[in-house]
Amino acid sequence: MSFLYKADPVRGARWAERFAEQAPDIDFRIWPDIGDASRVEYLATWVPPQDMARQFPNLKAVFSTGAGVDQIDFSQVPAHVPIVRMLEPAIADHMVEYVVHAVLTVHREFGEYGVDQREGRWQVRPNRLARDIRVGVLGLGQLARAVLSRLRLFDYSCAGWSRSAHHIEGVACFSGEAGLEALLARSDILVCLLPLTPQTRGILGAELLGRLPAGASLVQTGRGAHLDQQALLDLLDTGHLRWAFLDVTEPEPLPPDHPLWRHPRVRITPHIASSTNPDTAVTAVLENLARLRRGERLDGEVDRERGY
Amino acid sequence: MSFLYKADPVRGARWAERFAEQAPDIDFRIWPDIGDASRVEYLATWVPPQDMARQFPNLKAVFSTGAGVDQIDFSQVPAHVPIVRMLEPAIADHMVEYVVHAVLTVHREFGEYGVDQREGRWQVRPNRLARDIRVGVLGLGQLARAVLSRLRLFDYSCAGWSRSAHHIEGVACFSGEAGLEALLARSDILVCLLPLTPQTRGILGAELLGRLPAGASLVQTGRGAHLDQQALLDLLDTGHLRWAFLDVTEPEPLPPDHPLWRHPRVRITPHIASSTNPDTAVTAVLENLARLRRGERLDGEVDRERGY
Repeated sequence: MSFLYKADPVRGARWAERFAEQAPDIDFRIWPDIGDASRVEYLATWVPPQDMARQFPNLKAVFSTGAGVDQIDFSQVPAHVPIVRMLEPAIADHMVEYVVHAVLTVHREFGEYGVDQREGRWQVRPNRLARDIRVGVLGLGQLARAVLSRLRLFDYSCAGWSRSAHHIEGVACFSGEAGLEALLARSDILVCLLPLTPQTRGILGAELLGRLPAGASLVQTGRGAHLDQQALLDLLDTGHLRWAFLDVTEPEPLPPDHPLWRHPRVRITPHIASSTNPDTAVTAVLENLARLRRGERLDGEVDRERGY
Repeated sequence: MSFLYKADPVRGARWAERFAEQAPDIDFRIWPDIGDASRVEYLATWVPPQDMARQFPNLKAVFSTGAGVDQIDFSQVPAHVPIVRMLEPAIADHMVEYVVHAVLTVHREFGEYGVDQREGRWQVRPNRLARDIRVGVLGLGQLARAVLSRLRLFDYSCAGWSRSAHHIEGVACFSGEAGLEALLARSDILVCLLPLTPQTRGILGAELLGRLPAGASLVQTGRGAHLDQQALLDLLDTGHLRWAFLDVTEPEPLPPDHPLWRHPRVRITPHIASSTNPDTAVTAVLENLARLRRGERLDGEVDRERGY
């Protein structure tokens, strides 16, 4: 039996060290050194190998090395093989850091103070209380809940939206089409933490963004394909939107001459808001292998119908 | 009996509204409309009036409208009149927001990503775990404790230093000269939250900053006179220091042509990290007036020997 890793090789070396320490009985291999393909029972991957069902006939589980699984074509994975999202604490911690930084930047007007600095202008803007800043999060999965929980500690006025109804202490929860309208109308800062599915592709378009209050800001930590980038640029230029923090773009990497790079009220980061930490990820994967041996449902197992 | 307010008049109007609601029996006055000076028993002030002991012979307490009292010449306040720092929740909340934003900016390399953006460069930098970032706070007063408590939630490796020994759960506490050396040697990010006293004036000089590890960053939220600004610029230019966040400068406002404005690794804000919120400040002051009537010690009462 072997465990095959196919993603960033530098992190792969850290995975190999952790496997050697914590599960020395497992033959851990890094792509393309696959060994005997018929022995590969577990695959941890970002972009999966082509034709994996034929190439690895004895697969028992496919683990995404990231929080999302939108890069995996489910039809290429045999129906009896679970597909597993990465749920490990560093992913949530990093996402919390990224979103809190963006929300504080908008709330405390650090972007505006940056402009003042370039012009040598000492100009005090009144401090608003966090409780007067309304943050709305699209998506109420594990990452969104971690983000909302930390934002509540800062006393932001927090709300969230998801397809199905949820209840979260201290968070105004909305669902469905009418709920989306209500969430947008009360969001000074909109954070996208949706999974990418056929239903959410292109959701951040002119129509949705136009329903935000004038002067609202966007924190885009979903997937590039959620956002209509031209609509965003237009709404920034009319002044309807104030700031946009984009950690994901379409395409990635964003070409050097793309207009998003140059917009003075867009902050771009290269898909680094959240990343899997090799140490904590291996712990999470080994716990899932133990669940599989006990015949239990895996942590992060994807519902193929729902798409996440 | 009257209560005289002498600070920003816009905020003063908010104070007046709150007094009218919560203490309508008090004759609340905004400088320069002092009325009968002999009736002034309480003074809330940023820069105190000259010769206040003679001008207001029946003073019973002097409240600073800010967290610091270094702008007040204690010798001008009769010995029997308590001088009171402003302790109210918005001051701590705002300081927490400011410092967390600065620490996240350094930790998650948002400044470096800003440079990449200007050059249209999509370049991933490895995410470090918060627990591997060492934050050291100079000062262990109310604001420093609020900041450390929030930083601990992010799992930063937290330490603090003060003149006298303290114990704070989850924070490595240092004191005295040897303790300062130890704190500096383990601080990737140094946060100054000291009061300004004769002992702390100029403390952030070439010698102290030089004892930080190479590549450390400074978050200066104390007072402008704590810092040797030329020493800071020199250490940034040699690369010994990486980033400096300055909310306070010498002088304030900083003149438009000052070199600090233009340094690419200095972030300047115009003394806005923390500010008194009129609503919560009036609540705090009225609670102190009740304590005074009951003959109790006031919350935030200054020890004139210690200077804060």
